Order: sequence, then structure tokens, then C-alpha cells
Amino acid sequence: MMQVPSETYQLLLKIRQKRPLVQSITNYVVMNNTANALLALGASPIMSHSILEVEEMVRIVNTLVINIGTLSERWVEGMVLAMKAASAKGIPIVIDPVGAGATTYRTNTAKKLLNTAQCAIIRGNASEIISLYQSEKAETRGVDSHHQSEEAIYAAQELAKLYNCVVSVSGETDYIVEKGQTYAVANGHPLMPQVTGLGCTATVLTAAFAAIDDSPFKAAVAAMVTMGIAGEIAASHAKGIGSMQIEFLDALCNLSETDYLNLTKVRRIE
Amino acid sequence: MMQVPSETYQLLLKIRQKRPLVQSITNYVVMNNTANALLALGASPIMSHSILEVEEMVRIVNTLVINIGTLSERWVEGMVLAMKAASAKGIPIVIDPVGAGATTYRTNTAKKLLNTAQCAIIRGNASEIISLYQSEKAETRGVDSHHQSEEAIYAAQELAKLYNCVVSVSGETDYIVEKGQTYAVANGHPLMPQVTGLGCTATVLTAAFAAIDDSPFKAAVAAMVTMGIAGEIAASHAKGIGSMQIEFLDALCNLSETDYLNLTKVRRIE
Amino acid sequence: MMQVPSETYQLLLKIRQKRPLVQSITNYVVMNNTANALLALGASPIMSHSILEVEEMVRIVNTLVINIGTLSERWVEGMVLAMKAASAKGIPIVIDPVGAGATTYRTNTAKKLLNTAQCAIIRGNASEIISLYQSEKAETRGVDSHHQSEEAIYAAQELAKLYNCVVSVSGETDYIVEKGQTYAVANGHPLMPQVTGLGCTATVLTAAFAAIDDSPFKAAVAAMVTMGIAGEIAASHAKGIGSMQIEFLDALCNLSETDYLNLTKVRRIE
Repeated sequence: MMQVPSETYQLLLKIRQKRPLVQSITNYVVMNNTANALLALGASPIMSHSILEVEEMVRIVNTLVINIGTLSERWVEGMVLAMKAASAKGIPIVIDPVGAGATTYRTNTAKKLLNTAQCAIIRGNASEIISLYQSEKAETRGVDSHHQSEEAIYAAQELAKLYNCVVSVSGETDYIVEKGQTYAVANGHPLMPQVTGLGCTATVLTAAFAAIDDSPFKAAVAAMVTMGIAGEIAASHAKGIGSMQIEFLDALCNLSETDYLNLTKVRRIE
Repeated sequence: MMQVPSETYQLLLKIRQKRPLVQSITNYVVMNNTANALLALGASPIMSHSILEVEEMVRIVNTLVINIGTLSERWVEGMVLAMKAASAKGIPIVIDPVGAGATTYRTNTAKKLLNTAQCAIIRGNASEIISLYQSEKAETRGVDSHHQSEEAIYAAQELAKLYNCVVSVSGETDYIVEKGQTYAVANGHPLMPQVTGLGCTATVLTAAFAAIDDSPFKAAVAAMVTMGIAGEIAASHAKGIGSMQIEFLDALCNLSETDYLNLTKVRRIE
Repeated sequence: MMQVPSETYQLLLKIRQKRPLVQSITNYVVMNNTANALLALGASPIMSHSILEVEEMVRIVNTLVINIGTLSERWVEGMVLAMKAASAKGIPIVIDPVGAGATTYRTNTAKKLLNTAQCAIIRGNASEIISLYQSEKAETRGVDSHHQSEEAIYAAQELAKLYNCVVSVSGETDYIVEKGQTYAVANGHPLMPQVTGLGCTATVLTAAFAAIDDSPFKAAVAAMVTMGIAGEIAASHAKGIGSMQIEFLDALCNLSETDYLNLTKVRRIE
């Protein structure tokens, strides 16, 4: 089993030292705060989506994030090209199926992308993960989850086998799944889902960790622990969701080994 | 006459309880902060613009916001489809004609959209409302108003009759108009127009209120009072427009009945 | 030689009084914070990119910013039309070649735009300026510079002659170059490059100063001094990059003549 607190802190130090380049093809709503979250972690963000340059851009980056939050045809074309280039280069791809289940277009696009190239990690909320597993049963309510993350564990485990990847489900407790093991991360704070785009932030941080470690599973666990701890520290200073987003970035900048040792709440459940 | 303070607070409680889904097809500049403002109010934001999914998305939402701040052809196509779907479903549509009068394309698009489906509320600044009423007389100076809101009362009243809807004009004093009655809301603070996108925020909050009350007029009044009070509370803590935007979101999260009872400044002028 | 502190403060007062309209065709990541930075300075932002309106919009503005941070075909078409309209009207154009050198598409687009109309100022980081000068030698690493600004002085001087414009290179020390003179601005703080989009903010502030003074060189120096001083004041209050971006906007709102007199660090090096 991972020694999560110390290993995660070592990965964080490695990010701060190597400053991995994270390319995101993501939604308009979260571009600014996910870029700042990557900088706060110690990574370096790039946003680029045009079919005229995404493949060339992939050559200089260390990981690729695909997020379908405000998808449209041309952007999906860019995502496909970037994923193929990332796959050819062998860098990890992290996909966030925002709103999968809310519309047929989203669900189908998420599935199409998952079949375009081997993804390292799927990161979503419970409703998205469930809808990806079994479209007919899921009723995603917009882009916020209306399922508890526990309800998605089985779907996550099946998806992990189907796509041979890690599945990371965020919620009050986060579940990180790969074939044969499931971890539960109980860090976080109720203010977090009230800030727009913190799910998307979890996705880019997951990619940053995946860029500097060979184990996508370890990377996904490290990212969710890091998100949760930074969120707890931030919430202790926040007066509402305005200050919460600012305190969250500040907390990310200042995470120490002591924070990880004192606050990490992770257990293996399978 | 409305008992504005208590009725508005009851509407706020209803939003916090029902968490209405607000779909926005809006401009790139304000997506993040309008999403956060909706969350701070207690509503749930969705951003989706593609012609491939907007109609289906409308089926799961409670209100639709159309904002032409950074319009382009494909986005206008998505707006038209979403408006028709919202109209068919019978959910309220709130339109923000950002920059109407600044270019022919904006003015014409705003008019085209107003004729696409019945809107519940038009919410804009004085220059935009005047330009919609009488294009030839208005000279919108960019996206910020260079008219006092008082100058737009007549135009608002005429527009309200023409389009059979509520017109909400923001300014130092806000005027909310429907056929037969006009309210003036004197809440707010001079720092507010200095923060980008607070007008657009007024629009999405108006939609959230419209989603949980059958009277668009009452919803528009409630939204402008809520904006103004949150702005006053925020300004009392702010050092500039950076902290203003953060304090504004925090204030929205924490509005109490006492705030409404003590601070509401509304009067009926017609 | 310029009396930089007092002259810059006089220009700032002029901006606050005249509120120049700054039209930006820019990237999605920074639209919100560059708009707020312009408002904090005292200017007025407009974002508009559609080929159906950019030329008409240019008629009412005082300066045009072109930033290729998240470029795509249709947006470049809008940039070209807007630049030609700005050139015909005689208002200053400031171009930010974000990520030039990272992909062929970016480098070629930046060069194409520079040849579309006479630019007043090119503002970029060292890697971008070097790559523009000599594509084959530069290896831009994403959108963050991996060259020291000193390394770009020669390239900046050559570009300034080639395009008959001012070149403003940001870095630990900023260099502002026109044919025959080079200034070094040593203001700023290490937290600044850690906040996403502060380079793009430097560009829009440069445009705001260019809108109210006939000397693009003086405008570029004034903008970099203003950025640096606001950054220093902000950093003295910041706990991380979250609070840094908020404190930066607040500092911009509150800059005084004393700040300029006490903090300006500028020298002529050529």
C-alpha cells in the first residue's frame, strides 16, 4: 500500500522542481482558475485547442487534459487530434467527461474520446461516471452531481476494467479505482463543490501528478489528497465562495509535508 | 405593492432550497464569475452553447439566460435553438443585450432574439435599453453605459409594452418596469460598475429568481435588490475592485433576512 | 530622458479622467482579469472578435489589443479586420505574440499580423520576442518564458527596427526598446509570473497608456512601471497567487504619486 502522505509530498516536490507542462483543451468557464491552480501547484499550464496547432503543441508538453465542459464540434476535432498525438508520444491523458449524461451529445462525445486513444485517468463526479458506465440508468442533472460518490464505485470499477485505466470519482469521499484496488480519500470540505470549476481543477492537478509519476493510480490519489487538504485549509479561512477560491489557491501554494502528515485521510477499501 | 424585503428573502430561501438550474449562453468574459454568483445565491449554473446539445440541455433546466457580450454566428444559432426550446417548455428566458447600440450586429441580433421567442425579462444598462428602443438616437459607448438610468425609463416602458415583458434597467438607481408599474431600486455602490461582469451577474441572478416565482416582475425586483445589498455589504469591506469581487460573492453567500429588512431601498414610482 | 515617475503618474491621471476604450481580441484564459485590470487602471474594456462587428467596434474605441493566446482560424480573421480598421483610423495597435515559437502556427500568425498593419508596440516575454526575431534559434517552452529578458534585448532592438515599432520585453527586468533608445524597468516581484495572465495584463495596460499619449515608447515604459509597482505593493500583502491576483487589482486601483516617486526603478541603458 502507498505511504500516501509522504509519497504525495515527494511528488509535489518533484512537480515544483520539474514544472511539468500541462496542456488543457478545456471549457471556457474554468480556464483561468485551472491555469492558476496548476501554477499554484508548481506546474505550468498551456491552453491550446486549434486543429492547426494542437498536435505540434503536444510535442512540448508532459501531459494532456481533455475536458468537455463547453464542447462544440471544432473543439472536439482538436481534442481528437491532440489525444492521438499524446498517445503516439506516450504522455498520460486525463479526461474529464463534464456533464456526461446531461445530453446525448456529451455522453457520446465522452465515449468517442475514450475510444480515440488510451487514457490514463478518467476523472469525474458520480453522475458522470455512472452515466458513462450505463447511459440508460443515469440522469445527470446538469454539471453538478446528484449522486453520492459511493453509488459510483461499481461503475468506476467496471469502467476501469473496460478502458484499462484509472477512474477517479470526486464527492464527499473521493474514490480512486484501478483494476484490483480502490482507495477512498475523505479529505475536502462542503464549500468546495460550491466553487465553480474545482472539479475541473482536480482534473488538471491529477494530470500534473500523472506527468511526473509512472503510476496513474498513485497520481490520482495524490491529486485528490492534495485537493482535499488544500480545500480544508482554505475553508478554515473562508467567509464564502469568493474568499474560498482565493484561499484555495493560496493554500495550494503553501502546502507543506506537515499538512500532508497531519491531514491526509485515505484508506484502501479494496 | 410588494413587501419587497420579506418577499425577496422568501424567494432567496426558495432558491437555496430548490437550487434551480440556470442555463446560460453567455460571453466568455463573465462565465466564471456568473457561475460563482449563481452558486453563491444557491442556484446551479450550466453553460452550454453548441447547436448539437442546447435544445436537449434546455429540457433539464429551469430558466435560460441569453447574453450577447461576445457574440458570433455559431453562438447566435445556439441561442435561437435554445430560446425556441425554452419557449416550448414554458421556462422563463432572460436576455441581456450587452453592447446593443455599439454595433449594428449587436443591435440587430438583440432584436432578432427578442423576436425569436417570448422573453420574460430584458435586463440591460440604460444605453442598451435606449438603443433597443430607438436605435437611431442611441450611441452606446462600448459595453458600459453612458446614459443615466433615469434617461431609459421611457424606453423601458415602451419596450415592456412592445415585447410584453419586464424590462430591468441597471444604474445608480435601477428601474424595473412592466406594463402599468415601475419600481426604483436605490441599492448598490459606485464600486459595482467598476467590476467587470456585475451587470451580467445581475442578469443570471434575475433568471434564478424568475425560475422560482411566476412573476418576472417580482423576480427582477428581487434580483436587483439582492445585487444592490450584496454590493453595499461587499463595498464596506473592499479595498479596490479585486477584493470587491471576492467580497461580493461572500456577501451573496451570507445574505440574511436582517440584511434585507435593514438595507432594502425600493419604491414604486408608477 | 523621461521623468518617469511624475510623467507616468500624469498619464495615469489622464487615463482615469478620459477612460479610454480598449478593444481586445484576446485569449479566453485572461479575458476576465484583463478587463478588471483595465477598469482598475481607469480605462474601459471591450471584448469583441466576430468578423461581423470588429471593424464597426473599432470606430468607437481608442486602442486595439491583439493577443494570440488561444488562437483559431475565425479569430485570426477577426484580428486582421480589426487591425486594418484600427490602422485606417490611426489608433495604436498593441500586439502580444503569446506562445510565439511554441508552434509554427503561432509564430506564423504573429508574423502575419505584424505585416497586416503598422503596430505601435509588440509586448511579449523573452522567448516570444526571440522567436519572432529568429524562429530557428528559439525554443519557446509553452507560454512561459524560459529565457532571461536580457537575452532578448538584441532581438527586441532588431525587431523594433524591422517593424518600426516599440518592443516591450517583460521579465525580471523589463526592457522597452525603440530605435535609438532602450530603457530597463526593474520593478516587479517573483510572484507575478506565477499568476496566470499578468503578461496579458501588461499588454492591455500598455494599450491603455498608448491610447492617451502620442509616444508608444513612453506608454510602454509607463505601463511596465505601473505593472511592477502594483505588483510590488500587492506582493507585500499576498499569501500566495490567489491573494496576489486580488491584491494586484486593488493596488492598481489605489496607485498614488507617492508610490511612483518612491518605487520607480527605471534607467536608460542605450
